[in-house]
Amino acid sequence: MKILQIRERAVPVRSSLRNAAFDFGEMTTSIVAVITDRATGYAFNSTGRYACGASMRDRFIPRLLSADPETLLGDDGLIDPAKAVARMMTREKPGGDAERSVPIGTIETAIWDAVAKAKGQPLWRVLADRYGNPQMADKVPCYVGGGWYQPENDLALLQDEVRRHLDAGYTALKIKTGGLSLDADCRRLDATLAILGDAQNLAVDANAAMDLDRARAWAARLAPYNLRWFEEPVGVHAYGDFAELAASYSPALATGENLFCLADVDNLLRFGGFRLDRDVLQVDPPQAYGIDSFAKMVGLLETRGGSRRRVYPHGGNMMSFAVTAGLGLGGCEAYPGVFGAFAGYADDMHPENGLLSLPDAPGIGFERQKELFALMQELSA
Amino acid sequence: MKILQIRERAVPVRSSLRNAAFDFGEMTTSIVAVITDRATGYAFNSTGRYACGASMRDRFIPRLLSADPETLLGDDGLIDPAKAVARMMTREKPGGDAERSVPIGTIETAIWDAVAKAKGQPLWRVLADRYGNPQMADKVPCYVGGGWYQPENDLALLQDEVRRHLDAGYTALKIKTGGLSLDADCRRLDATLAILGDAQNLAVDANAAMDLDRARAWAARLAPYNLRWFEEPVGVHAYGDFAELAASYSPALATGENLFCLADVDNLLRFGGFRLDRDVLQVDPPQAYGIDSFAKMVGLLETRGGSRRRVYPHGGNMMSFAVTAGLGLGGCEAYPGVFGAFAGYADDMHPENGLLSLPDAPGIGFERQKELFALMQELSA
Repeated sequence: MKILQIRERAVPVRSSLRNAAFDFGEMTTSIVAVITDRATGYAFNSTGRYACGASMRDRFIPRLLSADPETLLGDDGLIDPAKAVARMMTREKPGGDAERSVPIGTIETAIWDAVAKAKGQPLWRVLADRYGNPQMADKVPCYVGGGWYQPENDLALLQDEVRRHLDAGYTALKIKTGGLSLDADCRRLDATLAILGDAQNLAVDANAAMDLDRARAWAARLAPYNLRWFEEPVGVHAYGDFAELAASYSPALATGENLFCLADVDNLLRFGGFRLDRDVLQVDPPQAYGIDSFAKMVGLLETRGGSRRRVYPHGGNMMSFAVTAGLGLGGCEAYPGVFGAFAGYADDMHPENGLLSLPDAPGIGFERQKELFALMQELSA
Repeated sequence: MKILQIRERAVPVRSSLRNAAFDFGEMTTSIVAVITDRATGYAFNSTGRYACGASMRDRFIPRLLSADPETLLGDDGLIDPAKAVARMMTREKPGGDAERSVPIGTIETAIWDAVAKAKGQPLWRVLADRYGNPQMADKVPCYVGGGWYQPENDLALLQDEVRRHLDAGYTALKIKTGGLSLDADCRRLDATLAILGDAQNLAVDANAAMDLDRARAWAARLAPYNLRWFEEPVGVHAYGDFAELAASYSPALATGENLFCLADVDNLLRFGGFRLDRDVLQVDPPQAYGIDSFAKMVGLLETRGGSRRRVYPHGGNMMSFAVTAGLGLGGCEAYPGVFGAFAGYADDMHPENGLLSLPDAPGIGFERQKELFALMQELSA
């Protein structure tokens, strides 16, 4: 198996969303096609950050294409994504991971797609075999990441949204918090729960926008709700602040979509007060050096006594779905109706009672996601 | 004062160096020119990483140029670099700092150059006034970052190098470590000290290439030497490993050239076992959101009881010199004869007894660095 070409293109995400920390108005993502002699693999760098084609073109693609193809193969004669990452890391200075973990992780994920297609298997199956999944399920829990702030008529629109998700077959939901006053945010919670019911089906997400004082005030008011989790309550790398909240807030906390390397996760576990019996880890595989690196993070969590059932990868797309199903994680996210072509799953995958069935298409399965795959096909045509 | 244009260009660093972790063969840097109606400011993104022009062109330059110029001004009617950074951070997701801290920091540093020129003052003077330097010296300590591994005849070339630096007026030196066996590395130390004399004038740098076991073995052998410092002994974000070494290795440790934001420094101080009475902090201002952010890191260190005299910014260029002199830091680095045009100081600045005198050119003073300034002038022509 040999990489023939790697192509990438920046595409606008076209979203008018905002959360407590930022809006998505200018955001772009990089679509990648890894064209091999066996199959073409695709990926994109998730959402919430920017396209990263320049470093792919200047550094990572030339390094892969200049490698002796034999040196990138595993024992099965297919490309070993971990070896591809090691090659891309040539001449990289230690540290500064976020500058390269997204382009490298996106290329790595596209390589997995090509490898799974070369095997004629869905990626979730390939990952389960490669990393050993003790409890392969035939359905995967999926919750909605939604509840964005609306400039007008926010509460009524929020309740409409909750009803829409329930009608679509979802049972669990995450809404934004921290973008309004605490009282106003609690009114959003109450309005949501009035439709949704059980607070264990509701999480909130502060998008790392709060300082410790504000997070403490929110935590005190949120605790009696006993929500599913309180996500990114403080700064992404404010491990000390996270630990302080974890010591006083009894329900689950969640974080990880902005952790990009194994050292970040290690620091969260060592210094963040992360409670292995309840807190939730949410790294985004293509943003964090790819699926093999993600599997190492899950391994580290388990070595410390945590459970992969409390890992919910960020992303809400077929890539995070394959990882969730293949590694037997807790569940995945969905963003119905937002992020355009970059949100959601294969067109024929619909949740039933909050669960998604496993697709049987080879690879990641972008081929069954019409709008997105049209963009990908343009790239490899 | 109004920004008219910002131009950038990627330039190869053209270096054949290697350390324990990586080589510099493909490395590039971004030169930036911030053209205002009062003066043109220049900067580059230091060395050891890659050019970052794409994100400047796509995100940071358009955000600055689309801002109402009035909103970027300070009380003195000149551009306030901190306000420029806040503007560049619009629509940026929290975390992932390393992806943007270099392009933003480089533009910020170029803005300082323009502002200091508009005031008709050297940047060190402007910084001393802005941030309050309690002990402005008229000379700045400068040590050589050298001692790179040579593929052949390493020990003899190393001793030649030490003699050359002493002849040039330097008194203190840092050499690489961790790239050979411990015995071979100690032979390099002994060879260096045979020429240099006092071990307090010698530091070693492992460039974050060691795991904890290896770093422990090195620390045990290095301790009796009582070197000036042992730099980046372990992974950049391995705060726990750094703390373990700090608990057992009595002489100074150093780190920071790969810390890119205030949260990183805060974590080092909280969790890294960083000893405020001896350890050395080495953040690189244009790689870490710029000079204003760097000053906040120094402020944080002092708030915790540390001293700015143990801050030695990474870089070895006129930018780190201005920051060292202006903020009254411990000293700066020099890389004579390496990194081509991107190493070193104004052509008329020569060390005497290990000290550099303050230049009187307005701004950073690149104008007196002929080879580098020729590249910069091409950009603004």
